[in-house]
Amino acid sequence: MRNIEIVQGILDSNEATAEGNRAAFDANGCLAVNVMASPGAGKTSFILRTIEGLGRDTRIGVIEGDMVSTVDAEKVQDAVSAVVQINTKGMPEACALVADMVHVALGRLPLDELDIVLIENVGNLLCPAEFNLGEHLRVVVSSTPEGDDKPLKYPLIFADADAVIINKSDLLPYVDFDMDKYTRAVRNLNPRAPFFPMSCKTGEGVAEWGAWLRNQRPNR
Amino acid sequence: MRNIEIVQGILDSNEATAEGNRAAFDANGCLAVNVMASPGAGKTSFILRTIEGLGRDTRIGVIEGDMVSTVDAEKVQDAVSAVVQINTKGMPEACALVADMVHVALGRLPLDELDIVLIENVGNLLCPAEFNLGEHLRVVVSSTPEGDDKPLKYPLIFADADAVIINKSDLLPYVDFDMDKYTRAVRNLNPRAPFFPMSCKTGEGVAEWGAWLRNQRPNR
Repeated sequence: MRNIEIVQGILDSNEATAEGNRAAFDANGCLAVNVMASPGAGKTSFILRTIEGLGRDTRIGVIEGDMVSTVDAEKVQDAVSAVVQINTKGMPEACALVADMVHVALGRLPLDELDIVLIENVGNLLCPAEFNLGEHLRVVVSSTPEGDDKPLKYPLIFADADAVIINKSDLLPYVDFDMDKYTRAVRNLNPRAPFFPMSCKTGEGVAEWGAWLRNQRPNR
Repeated sequence: MRNIEIVQGILDSNEATAEGNRAAFDANGCLAVNVMASPGAGKTSFILRTIEGLGRDTRIGVIEGDMVSTVDAEKVQDAVSAVVQINTKGMPEACALVADMVHVALGRLPLDELDIVLIENVGNLLCPAEFNLGEHLRVVVSSTPEGDDKPLKYPLIFADADAVIINKSDLLPYVDFDMDKYTRAVRNLNPRAPFFPMSCKTGEGVAEWGAWLRNQRPNR
């Protein structure tokens, strides 16, 4: 039982820090979005397309989570007001962002000058689902080459999602992906999250997603 | 420091159990292969193609790891001598197979009647790299739609690989994947692992991989 108690302890402490993060976002009228996906589902391209979809009048900050490297932060830095890279290597939880890491990042972001903070989690469909970061919205990005069975195999992350993106729609003619089967599997876990088919390569679906996300911002 | 000490404790205990698993494989002249990949990289299709590539004279057992579901075990059960499903949900480490889980599975496999045990790890490029299962070979399956930057972002799993599969080669015309960039990035981490471009959809590369794997079996 010892291990289970310890994990619970980490989660309890994470929850308290997440509440503090949430209070900081709320005090600044800033919408926080936690973006979660497999490695290679296209999270960083999705962040870039989201910035485009939100439009120039939205002030955007990005927190990039990765085990190592600053590859993703470099890709987005020119498109946003502020970006912070978190490298999780060597931390007790290297496989996901946790609230403490986001708390540190918030100290380096001008929250009072931002409308939205996009948090790109570590590429992983398992661990990130366990850790509340204080975000308002959890977005799961699936991609068509991963297959339509992902909700069956990684149910927790889909059950808690506030929106589901189905990226790489441009590859649908070349891969085995049954959209009906996929959406039914998500619906069984999550009756409410809207779906957004998208191609971050061609731009399909970006406008619809951007419009929905703009509407989630708190009234100021 | 408390968390770091605890994680170390788990890894030490895992190492001891992994040594026991390795001894059981060795005593039975059985080659154990740990297959690791992102969600949706095509691990189960790869297991099925590996069975085909090994040929009918090889006696094969499979251990399937997933957080939940028996989807993968059902897909392979008709193709092999024996299959055991491990569901990691609710275990202290839900994000990867650990040596204890494999130890339990070995009690349900007729090791003395098998030449090879293929272990399909949980879909994850981070946690599985941390846990020795007692395997002889670690195989990483990448897929072309994930992008050529995966070795930069998940270096540990590539650094320890004994072979690297580049799956979904049939999608190369439709995705941005620079094979030279990818193989250079792996080589920087790992000077020795052979590469096997493959399409589990078309069968390209399966024979070459099967031939290599057959040669890794211990002399009996």
